[in-house]
Amino acid sequence: MSNTIGHIFRLTSFGESHGEAVGDIIDGCPSGLKLDVAEVQRELDRRRPGQSDLTTARNEADQVRFLSGIMDGETTGTPLAFVVNNNNQHSKDYSDIKDLFRPSHADYTYQTKYGIRDYRGGGRTSARETISRVVAGAVAKQVLSQIGVHVYAYTSQVGSIALDKDYKKYSPEKIETNAVRCPDEAKAEEMAALIREVKADGDTIGGVITCVATGVPAGWGEPVFDKLHAALGSAVLSINACKGFEYGSGFDVDGRGSLVNDVFVVKDGKVTTKTNNSGGIQGGISNGQDIYFRAAFKPVATVLKEQDTINKDFQETKIKVHGRHDPCVLPRAVPVVEAMTAMTLLDFYLLSKSINRNS
Amino acid sequence: MSNTIGHIFRLTSFGESHGEAVGDIIDGCPSGLKLDVAEVQRELDRRRPGQSDLTTARNEADQVRFLSGIMDGETTGTPLAFVVNNNNQHSKDYSDIKDLFRPSHADYTYQTKYGIRDYRGGGRTSARETISRVVAGAVAKQVLSQIGVHVYAYTSQVGSIALDKDYKKYSPEKIETNAVRCPDEAKAEEMAALIREVKADGDTIGGVITCVATGVPAGWGEPVFDKLHAALGSAVLSINACKGFEYGSGFDVDGRGSLVNDVFVVKDGKVTTKTNNSGGIQGGISNGQDIYFRAAFKPVATVLKEQDTINKDFQETKIKVHGRHDPCVLPRAVPVVEAMTAMTLLDFYLLSKSINRNS
Amino acid sequence: MSNTIGHIFRLTSFGESHGEAVGDIIDGCPSGLKLDVAEVQRELDRRRPGQSDLTTARNEADQVRFLSGIMDGETTGTPLAFVVNNNNQHSKDYSDIKDLFRPSHADYTYQTKYGIRDYRGGGRTSARETISRVVAGAVAKQVLSQIGVHVYAYTSQVGSIALDKDYKKYSPEKIETNAVRCPDEAKAEEMAALIREVKADGDTIGGVITCVATGVPAGWGEPVFDKLHAALGSAVLSINACKGFEYGSGFDVDGRGSLVNDVFVVKDGKVTTKTNNSGGIQGGISNGQDIYFRAAFKPVATVLKEQDTINKDFQETKIKVHGRHDPCVLPRAVPVVEAMTAMTLLDFYLLSKSINRNS
Amino acid sequence: MSNTIGHIFRLTSFGESHGEAVGDIIDGCPSGLKLDVAEVQRELDRRRPGQSDLTTARNEADQVRFLSGIMDGETTGTPLAFVVNNNNQHSKDYSDIKDLFRPSHADYTYQTKYGIRDYRGGGRTSARETISRVVAGAVAKQVLSQIGVHVYAYTSQVGSIALDKDYKKYSPEKIETNAVRCPDEAKAEEMAALIREVKADGDTIGGVITCVATGVPAGWGEPVFDKLHAALGSAVLSINACKGFEYGSGFDVDGRGSLVNDVFVVKDGKVTTKTNNSGGIQGGISNGQDIYFRAAFKPVATVLKEQDTINKDFQETKIKVHGRHDPCVLPRAVPVVEAMTAMTLLDFYLLSKSINRNS
Repeated sequence: MSNTIGHIFRLTSFGESHGEAVGDIIDGCPSGLKLDVAEVQRELDRRRPGQSDLTTARNEADQVRFLSGIMDGETTGTPLAFVVNNNNQHSKDYSDIKDLFRPSHADYTYQTKYGIRDYRGGGRTSARETISRVVAGAVAKQVLSQIGVHVYAYTSQVGSIALDKDYKKYSPEKIETNAVRCPDEAKAEEMAALIREVKADGDTIGGVITCVATGVPAGWGEPVFDKLHAALGSAVLSINACKGFEYGSGFDVDGRGSLVNDVFVVKDGKVTTKTNNSGGIQGGISNGQDIYFRAAFKPVATVLKEQDTINKDFQETKIKVHGRHDPCVLPRAVPVVEAMTAMTLLDFYLLSKSINRNS
Repeated sequence: MSNTIGHIFRLTSFGESHGEAVGDIIDGCPSGLKLDVAEVQRELDRRRPGQSDLTTARNEADQVRFLSGIMDGETTGTPLAFVVNNNNQHSKDYSDIKDLFRPSHADYTYQTKYGIRDYRGGGRTSARETISRVVAGAVAKQVLSQIGVHVYAYTSQVGSIALDKDYKKYSPEKIETNAVRCPDEAKAEEMAALIREVKADGDTIGGVITCVATGVPAGWGEPVFDKLHAALGSAVLSINACKGFEYGSGFDVDGRGSLVNDVFVVKDGKVTTKTNNSGGIQGGISNGQDIYFRAAFKPVATVLKEQDTINKDFQETKIKVHGRHDPCVLPRAVPVVEAMTAMTLLDFYLLSKSINRNS
Repeated sequence: MSNTIGHIFRLTSFGESHGEAVGDIIDGCPSGLKLDVAEVQRELDRRRPGQSDLTTARNEADQVRFLSGIMDGETTGTPLAFVVNNNNQHSKDYSDIKDLFRPSHADYTYQTKYGIRDYRGGGRTSARETISRVVAGAVAKQVLSQIGVHVYAYTSQVGSIALDKDYKKYSPEKIETNAVRCPDEAKAEEMAALIREVKADGDTIGGVITCVATGVPAGWGEPVFDKLHAALGSAVLSINACKGFEYGSGFDVDGRGSLVNDVFVVKDGKVTTKTNNSGGIQGGISNGQDIYFRAAFKPVATVLKEQDTINKDFQETKIKVHGRHDPCVLPRAVPVVEAMTAMTLLDFYLLSKSINRNS
Repeated sequence: MSNTIGHIFRLTSFGESHGEAVGDIIDGCPSGLKLDVAEVQRELDRRRPGQSDLTTARNEADQVRFLSGIMDGETTGTPLAFVVNNNNQHSKDYSDIKDLFRPSHADYTYQTKYGIRDYRGGGRTSARETISRVVAGAVAKQVLSQIGVHVYAYTSQVGSIALDKDYKKYSPEKIETNAVRCPDEAKAEEMAALIREVKADGDTIGGVITCVATGVPAGWGEPVFDKLHAALGSAVLSINACKGFEYGSGFDVDGRGSLVNDVFVVKDGKVTTKTNNSGGIQGGISNGQDIYFRAAFKPVATVLKEQDTINKDFQETKIKVHGRHDPCVLPRAVPVVEAMTAMTLLDFYLLSKSINRNS
């Protein structure tokens, strides 16, 4: 609850942006995994600030360090704890906004809820919190990989520059060829240009991330309230700045049932469907087809322009935020979306072992 | 898990469409509520089949009967169990599809997961399961009403006939004036005509429901993984046929941060925001503004046209479903969306009493 | 939480003694079980009032009726709901104690917690609530039986009349030969005589139940906080009137480590231990030996003698309870202890399938 | 689950004895607590090895370091993470038992469950894991103290040397006057002599700890399965080496109901009971009287004598353990029992704020 997610594979997260460290305890990771820590670090580097001119200029090394749960390189089934130290904080950047509520941030809501808030860099509400997610997701990916499940995501829209919704038109190999993490190179350049323009203006822009999971067998997901897509939706919506989630045909609701229905066919002796408007999930349970969904992200709330706001005494005033911020969260959010997806899938795989017949 | 939802106010649901009854246990309902059972029944009547020519012709009386948790009309704090008998099943309608997997239904996934499925009327995957949701939501609404929180939803799109996204343009009083549950009467007629046309064709159509909660004070919602919108998203996505969820600005991602941000202002001594692109939730916690979201529903999978499919021996064949089905789920899904929203809000209100400072 | 127990195999219970029914939803029962409902009823009959002169004279038929989760006699993996109607209530027996707090009952604590209480027959705090447990336990036993796990319990002490602590001295076949459910016939007669004497005096007496589970393989139980014995302890302590739990050597703490330690030996190619002071559980995980524990039950709080007490206005007064009550809860608690044990073991078996290597 | 305990105030623990650190995330600690870290350290020092000649000679400094959740000395409502480094491990002490299953340890069960075990110092099964409990308990105590709730425990039995069961005969001020943590000085000396004798013999001895909570108001505890004593039982039984739990009259079952019942009386305008055989809990809910219970601890499994055992190839062999071990766990377990009690009470206090009428 609150800072814990998952049923069997469970992540419990801690840390503020300007505290000593952020980190996590992963409970329920299967024993016997030869954990490739370098690979975990590579995933973490994908969300690292300062990786291109499209992201914040903050340069955070973000080295993951595991404290438990591993012996001789192998997971033991006991909790995997890890920390990532906070090394590059500029806490004084924030002293002048200590008593102000930044528009569309969580300053006001945290203050109201808790009677106190860590105003330095957003405290717990900082996107540094997603470090925990990426590390746990990287561990989950390694387990999933052993059973043939792979997850990838990409930036499919920035502002109004959008790819086609059909993920099959794009090759996952192209995603990491550019800083936007968009598999269409021409569109990627347009998106990058837009992000630079917005950045130069001290402003920010949002977009959409598409995510795909391949190799998921039929039978993962729990009716009625723990439907697989409901869990994926919750996991992805819990990411900072995420405002929407749709899977399969999603908000495209103008087709008729007879056309939208996914007809079953048998191909090479295996059940498959002619179309996949279901997004790989029927009745909340995976059906063996690709799982895919789209997630909307709003523009980063921190703009470098002066804005109206109020202070903690409820007086109207002006605010102008300094510091180093992302003009667009999308490129760095791609690995976070993958991570939440991988964790959720692994959790439901482990659940299915308890619940499914002949598992 | 699975058939239970909620932390403090918890619903556990049971029942198949062609079993003896559907029903539910509500645990965590506050004691001392003078439960208006007639009002619960009125809510349930809103989801009842056969209420207009736009819905299925099945005529299910669906009378709710409480078995526990109430003394002299008042809740005692112990579990509220209720049942709604299944009276109008035509199980023989389904015998000819016993061995077939209906396209875009959960037949195949249930069979794969459990090695058995109740094929009569969809069994557990039938929308009759939403009876439990509506009853529990009706109870939640009565508790919320005492603290000034109100929830309403309406059909905002059918096929490509759509209202403006701004819910403030529409009056909640108009919702129940027509069978579509659309507060714009002209659009409602267009939608009704489309539904009738689709129905006449043996086909089905999807759409969008918009939901609004007013009166929610600042401070409900739990970071990091139990953000209020993530819980709402999960609850709503768990409804049969729901394919997408967006709150506030949602998938409208082409605005820049400086314009999308909700500037704080003080009005009559109270904190409010000039705009409400946040949808009433910031950092996962309610900020005192209206909460609003949109939910996408696919066309009902049961069409009365012949379709290709496979049987349980994985042979390709044809299927033609008979029986009485909804051509469009939207009108009857409106109270279900309200119910999931009310339950989730009440649950987070109760949690906030444990967690918030000075609560 | 509260009225729900279990992780995967989960029981959610409802009902007051003088409401319409008591019952339950079992979520997580494996699909494909040919449920023997008659056998479930037989287990329920073991806790039935009026079965001998040692129990209350109330004659409650207590017929279990399943409402969902079964098709053609086989569980489908969806929730098993059941109800047992309340048919033999004498609510008027309780009207004169409506405003009194019975000593050592839960009247005062419920009133304080909820501001209301169902005073008729103890309401939710009545031992009728254990019907739910016995039914769910009977289902669990049938699943466990398929993998060779069997659970039995017996009355091992009434007042100061006690069996030897070593359960191996007693044959489980003897348990049902007498109304006390004590496998030593001579002691059973002494116990029965004591219970009759106490009953004649309008008084009550407590005792101890011993429970044994055979056939549990090594590897069930979750460290650190969900140790198998901690879960068993919690499950058993949650039974009305239970005041203590000890497993293995328990409160016998005067032996030295070198003597108490269970030495591993190999017998017929299988690992076993020479002694079993660990009670079949080491480090919170089953080790393949018999699991056994003892549970203490206080005398029933309802005595038929006049007692001092206070009323709801906090004035001192006298109370004299009428009605039909058990002089000794032990004989009817035996199936309840077995039920909680079976449910807990099944839950941890299902969890082990998710978690254990090579499961 | 597994490595997490609690509903609202939740502890998630990690760490092996010979890893880099042990530690914990506390989620749900109320905001606004001026955390006295020095006081937390003092509690931790009470469980420190090497504090007297009755405990292991290992000298572990065990300094607690908080990584998050605190700003300017005040809790912020976000997770409190802490670590305690492992500094004094002698891993080589264990290399010769790498392939042996120590009698009555968790070596065999972990190996069976996970297919791997960290054999160094017991790994996750080491009592170093209780560091997390003591730190979290120390935080809980500080919150409880603000509402007048205090918890203390003491050694009430070592081997067959036992105090009277009535805790009112002993003054909590005397507990820390001796290394055994026994409030009766004469008995404490006897116990100390016994422990020294056992230690000299390379052997170990068990005992009983009594725990008392004062100031708990009526109304904490959740029926039916989350009864307050069931939760306390589970929490305490989850401590290493704990074999039994009884509260109130517990296993003393020879009294009749008319004598054991706690008669309500009014004293100074407040409801109280003449006796307290209920141990402060009725129907699973606190009744305003002192809560008290007893917990049995077996002798430490690590004896320094040669014992029979088997190796991982299931061959019979001998084992002789070296290293520095406690001859009696009781003195150092006292703060652990207090910690589990404080955490459980705080958790149920926070729950009661959600659930109780007029809370």
